[in-house]
Amino acid sequence: MNATLEAVMAQTAAQVGEALTTLLPNKPLTEAKLFDAMRWGCLAGGKRLRPLLVLQSSSLFGVSQTCALRTAAAIEFVHCYSLIHDDLPAMDDSDLRRGRPTVHKQFDDATAILAGDGLLTFAFEVLADPETHEDPNVRCNLVTALAKAAGPEGMVGGQQLDLIGETVPLDEKEVARLQRLKTGALISFSAEAGAILGRASPPQRLALRAYAHDLGLAFQIADDLLDAEGDEAVTGKPVGADAAAGKQTFVSILGLERARAQASLLADQAAKHLDIFEDRADVLRQLARYVVERRA
Amino acid sequence: MNATLEAVMAQTAAQVGEALTTLLPNKPLTEAKLFDAMRWGCLAGGKRLRPLLVLQSSSLFGVSQTCALRTAAAIEFVHCYSLIHDDLPAMDDSDLRRGRPTVHKQFDDATAILAGDGLLTFAFEVLADPETHEDPNVRCNLVTALAKAAGPEGMVGGQQLDLIGETVPLDEKEVARLQRLKTGALISFSAEAGAILGRASPPQRLALRAYAHDLGLAFQIADDLLDAEGDEAVTGKPVGADAAAGKQTFVSILGLERARAQASLLADQAAKHLDIFEDRADVLRQLARYVVERRA
Repeated sequence: MNATLEAVMAQTAAQVGEALTTLLPNKPLTEAKLFDAMRWGCLAGGKRLRPLLVLQSSSLFGVSQTCALRTAAAIEFVHCYSLIHDDLPAMDDSDLRRGRPTVHKQFDDATAILAGDGLLTFAFEVLADPETHEDPNVRCNLVTALAKAAGPEGMVGGQQLDLIGETVPLDEKEVARLQRLKTGALISFSAEAGAILGRASPPQRLALRAYAHDLGLAFQIADDLLDAEGDEAVTGKPVGADAAAGKQTFVSILGLERARAQASLLADQAAKHLDIFEDRADVLRQLARYVVERRA
Repeated sequence: MNATLEAVMAQTAAQVGEALTTLLPNKPLTEAKLFDAMRWGCLAGGKRLRPLLVLQSSSLFGVSQTCALRTAAAIEFVHCYSLIHDDLPAMDDSDLRRGRPTVHKQFDDATAILAGDGLLTFAFEVLADPETHEDPNVRCNLVTALAKAAGPEGMVGGQQLDLIGETVPLDEKEVARLQRLKTGALISFSAEAGAILGRASPPQRLALRAYAHDLGLAFQIADDLLDAEGDEAVTGKPVGADAAAGKQTFVSILGLERARAQASLLADQAAKHLDIFEDRADVLRQLARYVVERRA
């Protein structure tokens, strides 16, 4: 990985981890187990890809660090809630995430459901707070965009489509739509968030959306490739899990060769959308390359 | 029940049912099962107590019907999501609600989790939409108040406390706090919503909060009384379920006699807070009486 990008990613992960810790409720109440479970589900590390997109897109428009970090935290809360609920026995039934027990294994199923609910609700509280932006129109725009990206016609709809795909075969178009809903919508909003916070012009906002759209798709194809041919010791996940589960993925549909070519093409295309930002968007350009070349 | 109140409640229930139906996503997509489950969880009827509070408090300040109904719908979405998740096998494990299968029985556990997540997220989308109020400050205030009432330091915290109460004995103070968090916070916000929408003066907003606080507590005590001594044929629930589950309730703590006196006192006290609104608040006053005298 490019040295600049590596440094930026490490710095972002540290800053975001700190912001999440500061924001999350943490009082010694009888129900504190809920707060512990919320922290467990958020503070296990991870790439913090979505916060990176928020911070980098915000830096294009001179948005203050506080505004960008609060928005990044809200999006990461939503991402983490979705993982907690996805891992539940009724859903993917996963015992481990990032090498440690998932929330329902560490606590219990009921607490994991509530911790996810709590994180989702709390994300909106953070966004609507005047500390996130002085302009209430901007805050409402953030709430609307997050709700659309994460709601029944966004991420939650994608998760339902994913469930349905376990029993009904989906074609290439539906697999692409599944990905766009399940992970693409939140990734797009992350890149768009800087433009919303910075009250950017519509062409700038659209450029970031287009970038994030291609980046999200490239990211998912790369994920499917890692699942099919990755190094278990590096990815930390068993190889071939999707195929074993009978899941339709970009690899099962396109084959390895075409999937690899498609991911690379999308990464180039994503970077292209950033031309209007000139060299100020270099980190975002490097990120597009990283996303398809990463090994975990 | 008072004839006026009865008519108002029936009219409100009809209006709200229509608003919920119109707002909820309903497209013939592959994942439409999610939308079906969301509707199943919202459109089973019920008293629509929270929407009634929104509509009645809104009418005190001349708020438009559209604004009030959209806000009422958002709060009802949150109430229904909490019931869907509460009914899950990992939580209360209830098969029936209002005489028909709960969402996870009618669909499946995974779909019920997602339907709840979808309703919660969608509630914020509805509130932040310019159609709910022209003033973005008002919309942000609604989002903030809903997130606080429903989040980890509100309803979700109360649900966690309820879970903990199944294994750790709670004293009277903690049972009162549990109720305030689990159901009181959302009821308070419902009554306060009219004041937020109507940009009411702080004393007016506080009066409605105080009313709703006492109303919520009276409602819960009446609920506990119905559980302990209600008519199964009218309530539709088995008598003595709380005691059988070893749950601490106001009845188990105060005894029947004191619980009845306390509920009645709270209803009077709730009505008292409305003095500043004179006879314009008559429906809200009648509601306080109804809440403790209802038989289901």
